[in-house]
Amino acid sequence: MDRLLPDGGLALASLSEQLLQPGVKGLPLTEPMRQGAIGVQRWNVLRGDTGYPVALLKESALLHNLDWMHRFCAKHGAVLAPHGKTTMSPQLFGAQIANGAWGMTLATAAQVQVAYRFGVRRVLLANQLVAPAEIRAMLALMRDDPHFDFYALVDSEEGVHRLSRAAVAARLGRPLPLLVELGLSGKRAGCRTAEQALALARKVAKAPGLELAGIEGYEGLLHSHDRAGSLEAVRAYVAALADLVREADGKKLFGGDRILLSAGGSAYFDLVAHGFAGMRGLSRPVLPVLRSGCYLTNDHGFYQNLTQDVDEREKVSAGLRPALEVWSMVLSRPEPTLAILSMGKRDASHDMELPLALYTHRPDPEAAGGAEATALPPGCRVEKMNDQHAYLRLPEGDPLCDELKVGDLIGCGISHPCTTFDKWPLLLVVDDAYTVRYAVNTFF
Amino acid sequence: MDRLLPDGGLALASLSEQLLQPGVKGLPLTEPMRQGAIGVQRWNVLRGDTGYPVALLKESALLHNLDWMHRFCAKHGAVLAPHGKTTMSPQLFGAQIANGAWGMTLATAAQVQVAYRFGVRRVLLANQLVAPAEIRAMLALMRDDPHFDFYALVDSEEGVHRLSRAAVAARLGRPLPLLVELGLSGKRAGCRTAEQALALARKVAKAPGLELAGIEGYEGLLHSHDRAGSLEAVRAYVAALADLVREADGKKLFGGDRILLSAGGSAYFDLVAHGFAGMRGLSRPVLPVLRSGCYLTNDHGFYQNLTQDVDEREKVSAGLRPALEVWSMVLSRPEPTLAILSMGKRDASHDMELPLALYTHRPDPEAAGGAEATALPPGCRVEKMNDQHAYLRLPEGDPLCDELKVGDLIGCGISHPCTTFDKWPLLLVVDDAYTVRYAVNTFF
Repeated sequence: MDRLLPDGGLALASLSEQLLQPGVKGLPLTEPMRQGAIGVQRWNVLRGDTGYPVALLKESALLHNLDWMHRFCAKHGAVLAPHGKTTMSPQLFGAQIANGAWGMTLATAAQVQVAYRFGVRRVLLANQLVAPAEIRAMLALMRDDPHFDFYALVDSEEGVHRLSRAAVAARLGRPLPLLVELGLSGKRAGCRTAEQALALARKVAKAPGLELAGIEGYEGLLHSHDRAGSLEAVRAYVAALADLVREADGKKLFGGDRILLSAGGSAYFDLVAHGFAGMRGLSRPVLPVLRSGCYLTNDHGFYQNLTQDVDEREKVSAGLRPALEVWSMVLSRPEPTLAILSMGKRDASHDMELPLALYTHRPDPEAAGGAEATALPPGCRVEKMNDQHAYLRLPEGDPLCDELKVGDLIGCGISHPCTTFDKWPLLLVVDDAYTVRYAVNTFF
Repeated sequence: MDRLLPDGGLALASLSEQLLQPGVKGLPLTEPMRQGAIGVQRWNVLRGDTGYPVALLKESALLHNLDWMHRFCAKHGAVLAPHGKTTMSPQLFGAQIANGAWGMTLATAAQVQVAYRFGVRRVLLANQLVAPAEIRAMLALMRDDPHFDFYALVDSEEGVHRLSRAAVAARLGRPLPLLVELGLSGKRAGCRTAEQALALARKVAKAPGLELAGIEGYEGLLHSHDRAGSLEAVRAYVAALADLVREADGKKLFGGDRILLSAGGSAYFDLVAHGFAGMRGLSRPVLPVLRSGCYLTNDHGFYQNLTQDVDEREKVSAGLRPALEVWSMVLSRPEPTLAILSMGKRDASHDMELPLALYTHRPDPEAAGGAEATALPPGCRVEKMNDQHAYLRLPEGDPLCDELKVGDLIGCGISHPCTTFDKWPLLLVVDDAYTVRYAVNTFF
């Protein structure tokens, strides 16, 4: 986790040197503090040392997940370009690349600029580039740095025209590599049929300034309540992506010295890896690129359920662990079964499920450390959030209704890491005893 | 809008001087740029000059709303401590104070620290202070600056004990002024009955280091689909707050030279102003403090509906105007009635309603300016958002199904400003022709 990106050293070091002003969520500052000095404070979250709410990353779980996914990809002959939009944290990008990631996936031109600034030198932009300023910005990075390995998607003739014109005008000295996106009827972007995709691939191959580098899809949108049906649909879609590669290769449309074949969010990456394995006999090697972003922290809700299914399908134990928690304090105990927490929609994701109340602890400022949080009884749940408050409902008749006090801590897991990371400019990395080791920044 | 806070000048100037790096959402940067240089670029959003999505504030609407609310409060004999949590923007705090705001309301200790840093010198913290580090931080501000006028809420004996102990230990040289919160059964924080509130007020009045400065409540939680019932409940609650002031004053519990009586979110501030008017014959003057945060930008959804009701009740025309829009670009047109936009859950609020699709425009990079956006036909709506994408559904058979292209712009209104502001570190203030005048920062 402490290893830096090859070229990101200086920029990352500047984060460590920066003066944090009082007012950064979760930090207990009364004076400015250098970010790099956070670790030596030995703040302990269970002792009540920080501000609340505070967003935590458990270092042991991060390390486990980094290693787990690295081994998973190696075993299946795929490479990982984790979706950086999940965390938008340069320190975490660095940890991912130091742990074997082939590159980073990103969603917007602005995100690519942030990653580049902190040393990321291989990016798959998982969108069509359309806005003139954004096309210019990406081509400027490619032109100014011949070692910047950049790929983007395309799903329309308009996209091909814009990018071809701009790439020619930018005098890159090399083609802009594009992946044609095959989509899904009724879903998001992407060509709706293999025929459309093939026709577009032909246009890319012919267009000045461009190169057809591969084929891309996103199977994560196939999630539905019909689990077996979803799996079947994912397998069929993955097979269609592989077929499209074979067809386009048969027509000699690919440029470059390998073919990128990319899919794989955080729900079905195993099915993608299996579906993309063993592509041989083509004009050049096929490189399967998985793009999971949520594997790094997983969660206690939506993605945990999905990755437990992966464990089952792959027959592995000790799968991905939840690493992200938000801790808040009881601000008010206005009714026997109601506690108002110092955490709201601005602090924890609420788009898939509300935060999952897991632990409680009564902080003792005199404690030497080594305290352990207590699991909350079943039936405790966050039933509502306002902007800055959560409503924790306690099970009627449970002793906790008497015991839980103003000033007690509540530790919550979350469901959907992406929409929790974007609520925190800074998250604290803790050891298993909840002592703060260091901070990571985000750039949203 | 350009007037600064009395003591915030230097800190605000530092924002103007700061170098923005490429990668700030909405800005079309390829090189670092001083924030203060944004205005001279003459970027025009309709010409396609910026990055997309981009969050915009219409200056004319901001100025109108600042003036409208100032006149409203003056007319009703109330003062305004607008809730700063809505925007968390020091430049907008400055504009509010320059336009007559008595002080700022804030929700957390971290927010107070941000406001203080940028020159805000009167704060009502609309929560009970509980965490030790946060109590320490607020008392440190009071101790180090005798002119910092700070008020907080309390609704429990535990709160009184914590604050009394800490205030005595901090040797402030003056009492910490508290408002007792009267809540609502089944709702958020606050004492559940007037008796409990009065008993707590007595404890505050007696506690060393503390002073009872007033009574507080929040009527905004009484919103329901039964409009007449909601209004009735708000009026009764406001009356109960006023009664509590009279009772506590009869028992000589208040300290200081006036009594603060505070309520008033962005939905029913007129009812609060009426209910708090004309409180005379008490031991000291009563100062009604309204706290609306959303008045500044209003919106095109939830709050616009509510403030139109205010206009009706107050028999005024030309009420608050929506000032906040998020513009995005069509990334993909995969099906006749579907457009995929470059805007998602990370860019626009989705907790009350999804963004409201209002305008479209085909940007022409050669345009001299003066373009006008076209209103979208009825039936165009954002029907879903992912993290980074929105699904715009077009009405079947409408000419737009043929006309709308990749690269076209879509302008959306939002519903709930608070959860849009917190998605943008920087928002662009535009004139009525969508030319960018300057940027304001947020600190979440």
